[in-house]
Amino acid sequence: METINSISYPIYFNNSLAELANFIKAGNYTKFFILIDEFTGEHCLPIVQKHLGEDAVYDLIEVAAGEENKNIDFCIGIWKMLIDFGADRNSLLINLGGGVITDMGGFAASTYKRGIDFVHVPTTLLSQVDASVGGKTGIDLDSIKNIIGTFTQPKAVFMEHSFISTLPARQVLSGVAEMLKHGLIADADYWNKLKEADFTQPSADLVHRSVEIKNDIVIEDPKEKGVRKALNFGHTIGHAVETWSLDNDKNHLTHGEAIAIGMICEAWLSWKKNGLSEANLNEIVSTFRSLYPAYKISADCHKDLFILMQKDKKNNGNNINCTLLTAIGKCSIDHICTEEELCNSLNYYSSL
Amino acid sequence: METINSISYPIYFNNSLAELANFIKAGNYTKFFILIDEFTGEHCLPIVQKHLGEDAVYDLIEVAAGEENKNIDFCIGIWKMLIDFGADRNSLLINLGGGVITDMGGFAASTYKRGIDFVHVPTTLLSQVDASVGGKTGIDLDSIKNIIGTFTQPKAVFMEHSFISTLPARQVLSGVAEMLKHGLIADADYWNKLKEADFTQPSADLVHRSVEIKNDIVIEDPKEKGVRKALNFGHTIGHAVETWSLDNDKNHLTHGEAIAIGMICEAWLSWKKNGLSEANLNEIVSTFRSLYPAYKISADCHKDLFILMQKDKKNNGNNINCTLLTAIGKCSIDHICTEEELCNSLNYYSSL
Ligand SMILES: NC(=O)c1ccc[n+]([C@@H]2O[C@H](COP(=O)([O-])OP(=O)(O)OC[C@H]3O[C@@H](n4cnc5c(N)ncnc54)[C@H](O)[C@@H]3O)[C@@H](O)[C@H]2O)c1
Ligand SMILES: NC(=O)c1ccc[n+]([C@@H]2O[C@H](COP(=O)([O-])OP(=O)(O)OC[C@H]3O[C@@H](n4cnc5c(N)ncnc54)[C@H](O)[C@@H]3O)[C@@H](O)[C@H]2O)c1
Ligand SMILES: [Zn+2]
Ligand SMILES: [Zn+2]
Repeated sequence: METINSISYPIYFNNSLAELANFIKAGNYTKFFILIDEFTGEHCLPIVQKHLGEDAVYDLIEVAAGEENKNIDFCIGIWKMLIDFGADRNSLLINLGGGVITDMGGFAASTYKRGIDFVHVPTTLLSQVDASVGGKTGIDLDSIKNIIGTFTQPKAVFMEHSFISTLPARQVLSGVAEMLKHGLIADADYWNKLKEADFTQPSADLVHRSVEIKNDIVIEDPKEKGVRKALNFGHTIGHAVETWSLDNDKNHLTHGEAIAIGMICEAWLSWKKNGLSEANLNEIVSTFRSLYPAYKISADCHKDLFILMQKDKKNNGNNINCTLLTAIGKCSIDHICTEEELCNSLNYYSSL
Repeated sequence: METINSISYPIYFNNSLAELANFIKAGNYTKFFILIDEFTGEHCLPIVQKHLGEDAVYDLIEVAAGEENKNIDFCIGIWKMLIDFGADRNSLLINLGGGVITDMGGFAASTYKRGIDFVHVPTTLLSQVDASVGGKTGIDLDSIKNIIGTFTQPKAVFMEHSFISTLPARQVLSGVAEMLKHGLIADADYWNKLKEADFTQPSADLVHRSVEIKNDIVIEDPKEKGVRKALNFGHTIGHAVETWSLDNDKNHLTHGEAIAIGMICEAWLSWKKNGLSEANLNEIVSTFRSLYPAYKISADCHKDLFILMQKDKKNNGNNINCTLLTAIGKCSIDHICTEEELCNSLNYYSSL
């Protein structure tokens, strides 16, 4: 499968872990570090170590798994470990994990000594098709998702499809939501292909196509001034639902489950305000409903969700901004939605 | 006095606060915020407010003054205030203060929502001639100076010379140390002019010349890959002494006092290793000795100072890197110094 060239770095698909070993050697780094969580330490690190060889010398930095740990406390922990291990400006950080690890590791590296090199080895489907590509780094603060971060590109991304095989089914489905989004905003054929795919283990070809779609968009608009906002489809409402669930629900939603809800709501808004056909709306809704369990969002929470949307970094001033579909495979950005419209879309979701 | 053009932004000297008011109007920001500490709130804010006019609407963010507060806790405080005040991506942060405010405010702004606009209104001599120019942002962590930060340029810098008049004498002298450094590394004529200057209130012309020297260097090498290291003269040892003093001394050194010590030590190393004449060394030493009180650094602390130098972000691996003079007005970068040489330079300082 072809290597994809992003803004300033390559995304490897073939023999990617061998490529990682080559990259480290060629880079002449004084030291390198691998950032893991307990699950990627168990399932993915041994495979990486095999490729690095027995005499590779590096330090491990481990953080606790989970979105609730993508915060400034763990970030400070990473910075302090880098200090203690003597990481200098010519050091490399390898982020081995899902989106939590790639986002937080990218942020820590981009701010340590005003920026050291980092690469991503994404180990979840979601981080392969989405989080590892595009240069957004970030952590959550005060229950606001990714509110602190930078735009900093990794030096390379290494896609290892076999990592997906140890991923829990629910985490695979979380990534599938972003793949479906790629079809909805940019490629109706790909959407149709996905509908027939094996969602327990999406093929490497499908992953490659998703990365291609995301990469084409971010290359055109790295800092999200315009077209990149297409990727926010489902995320205005989805992020608020995700945050709410993280704060209130012990068994909280995954990122994909939350944006699947967001995509249903925003598809409804697309039908209401943006010319999406009723047939398209129904097709979208039934696809997501067949994949993701219904989630109870009581009307009492609508106000809280609205406040969360106002704090979201996608929104300017008091306006809530959505990306809406015009058809399956096509979208348009910068639609201002009122509190009432957003509530109605949540009511629609609850009525299904 | 001429406006100086930096990497991507102007540095205003004439009617700078009127220029600030124009800049805010022209920028069409949704909101703006002014970051102050208790002293700039008292001495400088009223003057800024007069220029902004009575109907200007903005929020104040106040942090406690002092280097010991240039840390992640206060930075989190700034981020949270921005969240609570509803700062969106199209907001502006105005950093009104010394180097602590411009460094920390620049870092907070460059990472809030992956980067919002900020400008500097430096109110100390040191921040005018040094900290506000060149795009380095940062905070301290674990007693390491500026270990966390970004390279992010402000949108503009506004130099108001009258602010210097309320500055305590010791703070004025702190800035003078950086001005003398500019002469030593780049301009012997300027050094000679400075020696005859009124150090209680250096003229606006001298400030302008210092900014010019610093700006010429950072434009050539924004990310400190090479020539910008010239500005580190006195800072390898100076930063270690400053950190040590912050940690151990209630009435700790100012930045300028610490780097004045660093410059004496590194001038000695320049004489020892880099062809600086003995006459030049003596001239440098007597200039700094006449301006700054002697500071006791017992030989017991040399080991601690050396460990601090190793953690400094200027150093790669285990090598300690210094910028050394060849003559007054000329320097060369990347001199590796051994622990013994560094100790001997500290002994030299103590023997004076
Ligand atoms: N930067 C971006 O552009 C971007 C885009 C989308 C999402 N994100 C972020 O990504 C995060 C979600 O990513 P995620 O879903 O990968 O979360 P995650 O990193 O929390 O991973 C999910 C779980 O899977 C485990 N895991 C990872 N790889 C495994 C493997 N190979 N085998 C077994 N278990 C494994 C992890 O330990 C974790 O428990 C969110 O924080 C979201 O904001 C960022
Ligand atoms: N970014 C860079 O390139 C760069 C360069 C040099 C120094 N620095 C940083 O700058 C910091 C030192 O800067 P500083 O010396 O300005 O420190 P500072 O900001 O602590 O200011 C010194 C003191 O003067 C007070 N003050 C400020 N303006 C005043 C005024 N007009 N009248 C009365 N009091 C006033 C402040 O409240 C403070 O108490 C250090 O943290 C250093 O690392 C950064
Ligand atoms: Zn997403
Ligand atoms: Zn300095």
